[in-house]
Parts: sequence; C-alpha cells; structure tokens
Amino acid sequence: MSVRLTYRQSLDELWERMAGVARLDVVAVERATLALLDSNRQLAELVISEQSDIDALCLDIEAHAAALIARQQPVAGDLRLVLGAIPMSASLARMGGLAQHVAQSTRRRAPESAVVDDLRDVFATMGRTAVAMAADLATALSDRDIRAATAVREADDTMDELHRQLFAVALAPSWSQGIEPAIDAALLGRYYERFADQAVSNAERIHFILTGAYPAHT
Amino acid sequence: MSVRLTYRQSLDELWERMAGVARLDVVAVERATLALLDSNRQLAELVISEQSDIDALCLDIEAHAAALIARQQPVAGDLRLVLGAIPMSASLARMGGLAQHVAQSTRRRAPESAVVDDLRDVFATMGRTAVAMAADLATALSDRDIRAATAVREADDTMDELHRQLFAVALAPSWSQGIEPAIDAALLGRYYERFADQAVSNAERIHFILTGAYPAHT
Repeated sequence: MSVRLTYRQSLDELWERMAGVARLDVVAVERATLALLDSNRQLAELVISEQSDIDALCLDIEAHAAALIARQQPVAGDLRLVLGAIPMSASLARMGGLAQHVAQSTRRRAPESAVVDDLRDVFATMGRTAVAMAADLATALSDRDIRAATAVREADDTMDELHRQLFAVALAPSWSQGIEPAIDAALLGRYYERFADQAVSNAERIHFILTGAYPAHT
Repeated sequence: MSVRLTYRQSLDELWERMAGVARLDVVAVERATLALLDSNRQLAELVISEQSDIDALCLDIEAHAAALIARQQPVAGDLRLVLGAIPMSASLARMGGLAQHVAQSTRRRAPESAVVDDLRDVFATMGRTAVAMAADLATALSDRDIRAATAVREADDTMDELHRQLFAVALAPSWSQGIEPAIDAALLGRYYERFADQAVSNAERIHFILTGAYPAHT
C-alpha cells in the first residue's frame, strides 16, 4: 500500500481486492468460453497470458491479510475476514487457473474446435452459468451481500445438471466423434464444474465471515 | 483442545495435526489405487467413507490456527506457520478428496475394472508416486524437514511424465477399448495429477514457513 490506510480502510480494501479478482475471473471464463466455441486461438492466448496477473494479485491479497494480522490484531468478524481472505485468494486464483485450462484446450486443438457440435449448447450454458456464478461472487464480495453468496450456491445445481448432460451425450451410442473429442469434453466439463465448486466454496466462506457460521446443508 | 497447552506446544500440535492428515492422505491414495487396480468395491467404499474424517480434522486445524492467532498474536515464523496452516489444511483435505474421486470411479465401474489392461502399469506407478509424495509431505510436516519438502516437488516431474504416457496410450490408433474407458482414464489421470499438484503446493508452503521465502523456480 503506497498510502497509509486506516484499519477500517484496510479491511475494506481486502474485500474490494477480492471482488476485483472475482471480476477478472468473470472476464477470464467468459473469454475462455467464447474462445472455445469460436476456436479463437488469439483470445485463448489472451486468457492464458492474463493468468499471471490474477496470480500476482492473489499473492498480494494474502500478504495484505498477513500484514493486517501482524499489525492490527483483528478480532471477531474482522479476524474471520482476514483469515478467510487467505484461502479465498488461493481459490480465486484457482478459478482463473481453471479458465486458463479451458483456454489451453482450445489452443491445443486450434484451428480445429475442441468442442463437437453435439456439445456446443452444453458448453455455452456451462460458460454462462460460470460467468453468472463468478459475477454473483464479485457482488457478494464488493457489497458483503449474503443473497448474492446464496445465489452462487444455488447455481451449482445447474452446473451439476449440465455436467450430467455432457456425459449422457459423450457416452451415448450415437457418439461418432471418436476418442479425443470425448476426452476433451470430459476434461473441459471438469474444469467448468471445478470453477463452480470453487465459487461455491468462496460463497460459503463469505457467509461464514458475515454471519460467523457456515450455511446449512452445504 | 481438552488439555491446556503452552503456546509452543500449540504450535507443535499444529504441525503434528497437519502431518496426521498427510498420513491419512497416504493411506487414502494407497487404498484407492489398490481398489482401482483390483476392482475392489469394498475397499473403494472404505476410502469414500473415511473422507469425512479427513474433512473434519482439517476444519479443526483451521479453527485451531484461528484460535492461536486470536489468543497469542504470533509473529515471524510462528505467524507464517499459523497463517499457512489455513490454506494447507484445505489442500490436505482436497488431497483426500481426490483419492475419494479415484475410489468413486472404481465403485461406479465395479465389478468391471475402471482401468484397461494397457494402462494398469501407468496407474500403478501413478499410485506409488502419489503415495511417496504424500509420505514425504507427512515427513516434511512432522520433522519440519526442507529436504523432504524438496523431494515432494521433485517427484512432480515423474507424475507429469506418467500423465503424458497415459494420453499417449489412450490416443494411440491401437486403442480399441472405446469411449468410456478413455474418459475414465483421462479423469483418473487428472485426479492423480491434481493430488500431486496439491502435495507440491503444500511442500512450497512448508518451505516458506521454514525459510520465509518460496523455493526458486516453482
């Protein structure tokens, strides 16, 4: 921090920095999905190259949280925030990393498509779901908004259902696209599913920070 | 903690609890691999059922670390340990979760095998590598041993090479086992690779706790 911040400002900044990374995760998974559906190698490269920025921001958040603990001895909800920021920053970085994996699959198959026609709709919907989850996560972080955190958790059912649809298509007797597209589909589906799982885990931590308890039936 | 521990004992206990979970991860991935290779549904069920113990222990570690920070205001290396324990406990739980995923694949295909004959050797070696990495991680935690942490990081090259071999087999023109075994192989390979990645990430954190710096060229 170049400017001397008050304790309260430092805590606000922690929320805002995490929200900032969540917004970068939105952009990353949105672009990665577009690149996947359009076999756009250039856009995939952009997603891959920007991951190092996300990683650096997340290491900064962790250092900022550690410095706050060392200097300010936060308690109660403040301590939950500062301690929660450490695993959350790792998880926010991982979400970007999973978008990067989608982009790497796109790049590996370009100029061919990594997605067969039968699965375009499933992946388009997975991408929209992932974007919505990360956007709600960003709102939950910037506004300390439990309802937005709950929306993230609820959207996970949609992602699980899409994941099941994907396997139903790839394992149907009508599948004629061979081994490699099936493997690509399985791994891509896993990246989106894990992206959603990380978003949910962050949403649960926000709930814990704001209320002191984890949400019921997680 | 039922007994009142000194500050120093509480820090020792944090290391020892993390080592204890790493040893459970060794057992989990060893059993999951055996169950996979023998199509042993009963053993797979055991791995799956024991994951909730690992998750509970890891939540305890996080709570123990948070209590230490609130009550004792650790500094320097002690603070690095206590703050590092929070993401490490999540990562140690995730390692168990990945062994559980291997067991779930085994259970889903039982009494058939989830592994085709061509890939038995690759998965047997992946399993041995994962066991060795988790065992070195347990040693690094219980003995605060940088050399053991370095051994974890070095073994990751072996896992990456095995992962490449797996795809070379599954994508070879000679592959005749169809779509589902190829998808199983790709996902199983990913679980072992992620298990190894989590072990490496923990080993890097141990290096940071013990020395104040992350290891070079990670």
